[in-house]
Amino acid sequence: MKKFLNSPDTVIDDALAGIAAAHPGLAVDTRQRIITRARPTRPGRVALVSGGGSGHEPLHGGFVGTGMLDAACPGEVFTSPVPDQVLAAATAVDSGAGVVLVVKNYTGDVMNFEMAAELAEEEGVRTATVLVDDDVAVRDSTFTAGRRGTGATLFVEKIAGALAEQGGDLQAVADIGRRVNAASRSFAVALTACTTPASGRPGFDLADDEIEVGIGIHGEPGRSREKLLPARDLADLTVRTVLEDLPLSSEDPAIVMLNGMGGTPLLELYLLFGEVAARLSERGVTIARSLVGNYVTSLDMAGASLTVCRADDRMLELWDAPVSTPALRWGL
Amino acid sequence: MKKFLNSPDTVIDDALAGIAAAHPGLAVDTRQRIITRARPTRPGRVALVSGGGSGHEPLHGGFVGTGMLDAACPGEVFTSPVPDQVLAAATAVDSGAGVVLVVKNYTGDVMNFEMAAELAEEEGVRTATVLVDDDVAVRDSTFTAGRRGTGATLFVEKIAGALAEQGGDLQAVADIGRRVNAASRSFAVALTACTTPASGRPGFDLADDEIEVGIGIHGEPGRSREKLLPARDLADLTVRTVLEDLPLSSEDPAIVMLNGMGGTPLLELYLLFGEVAARLSERGVTIARSLVGNYVTSLDMAGASLTVCRADDRMLELWDAPVSTPALRWGL
Repeated sequence: MKKFLNSPDTVIDDALAGIAAAHPGLAVDTRQRIITRARPTRPGRVALVSGGGSGHEPLHGGFVGTGMLDAACPGEVFTSPVPDQVLAAATAVDSGAGVVLVVKNYTGDVMNFEMAAELAEEEGVRTATVLVDDDVAVRDSTFTAGRRGTGATLFVEKIAGALAEQGGDLQAVADIGRRVNAASRSFAVALTACTTPASGRPGFDLADDEIEVGIGIHGEPGRSREKLLPARDLADLTVRTVLEDLPLSSEDPAIVMLNGMGGTPLLELYLLFGEVAARLSERGVTIARSLVGNYVTSLDMAGASLTVCRADDRMLELWDAPVSTPALRWGL
Repeated sequence: MKKFLNSPDTVIDDALAGIAAAHPGLAVDTRQRIITRARPTRPGRVALVSGGGSGHEPLHGGFVGTGMLDAACPGEVFTSPVPDQVLAAATAVDSGAGVVLVVKNYTGDVMNFEMAAELAEEEGVRTATVLVDDDVAVRDSTFTAGRRGTGATLFVEKIAGALAEQGGDLQAVADIGRRVNAASRSFAVALTACTTPASGRPGFDLADDEIEVGIGIHGEPGRSREKLLPARDLADLTVRTVLEDLPLSSEDPAIVMLNGMGGTPLLELYLLFGEVAARLSERGVTIARSLVGNYVTSLDMAGASLTVCRADDRMLELWDAPVSTPALRWGL
């Protein structure tokens, strides 16, 4: 294993020190492992808290800031944060208006955020949970009952975060988050497996001409192993799979993200996005907004995921609202 | 070789199609291979044009937009754009106030931009060239007489671009660009070699416990091959090497970039930046501004570079000025 690290045991603490040094607009509690905005929540504003295993950066810490999250709780690599950590984050950012918890659908995360929500309610912090389960690749998996939560997490955090910033109440912010998740689907392919610092070896072996289709963000198995295809055929497969599950008419404005898994350079992501855009266009889909880059990653995995949200005018308006976080920034 | 591509011969054209689809704020001339802002240059404003071989994305196309470049000319992978291409870009964006050409110091780029500048002058377009040569690793190399141009290119393009946006004249914009370059130094380490689409194989072999120290952005050899070190020791080596060449007092505000080479995930970049920040702090250096991410890459190479600019108040002010490009955006 060749990685920039001191020891597999200190990866998260060391990375948090770097995040703290890089972003004066964030406050990083390295002891409790909570990343919040440096400024406290405006009284009466609903707060958004998310979190999950580390290894998906910039998700979630990179999405903390004006117009998006109030706090992120990074767990160990590919491991849910603990309930006390989520509780401490919720308590820290609650202004009295309540906290929306954005949870990716993995068994550990669901359980720990549920426990944190109960503890928070006991401490007088109202919570509402938005569960993200957008990945159409598999119904159940190693880590999940139901669909996995992947790229749509960014869409939920951006759009619900914008409504919270505009003064939406707890119910309204959670509702729009749930609507965004319900309108979003993702599908991913991997060219290589990722290597966790703890194991030091790739999670699985792929031959030089093989890809894993329908991969998750923890290196868990996908739908099938296939021969490497040209980008246009991979784009066709990916677009077809997503649209089978999410019918779109040409009137629906789509928010489209072509996301890298961490080890794939931007040149290839743009190339693949060009093919995805062409395939979507052939099927009459209108790309209203798009993102191309590494946003919801899986350590050093080479690969990419496509996330499509069938947006409506309200979602687009909230998507366009100002945001200022380390990884997503416009209008501010 | 496993990459997202259709054919090694069409990588640049296909990627340009993706850039065009992803960024409505840009105009992409796929025939001439020129990326410009969608809106024409404001009359009387100096324009900035850069370019170079592809494979370093988001450099340069990702830096086209308000407050930074007016045009980028991507060549083939690791190959200079041709003079006619640079000429066409300069002519397209000149508003009459002249064009600053930002050129990384590689023999092919220097020659082709020089030829383009001569042709432009013949067509009545005034030009001034800023040569970037910040890499302290080697004095001459496979592709260079003198030092190589790497990460400081971003600093030059941001700061000179801000002055152009504020109405600086041709001489002033070129001058500040040259001052930024003179005040900047870079140094890089690679954990793996990159694979060009044309060759299909890594440019060199590194053992599982080896790194290449002082690597360039084309996979050209560095200073030495060493055993893999913990992040804190790599940070120490890198900081020491840069500061030997760029003395900094605690009064100098430093702009610091910890840049990924394309295949290194953000988690590791943050971790390494934490160590770099600590080593800089020990040496009394004040980090005034910082960037952590993949900005000046080398295809899929795993590795990182450190760039430090000994800024002054004017440079900081221009650094903070609004910018709106695909890869760098704040204040707008």
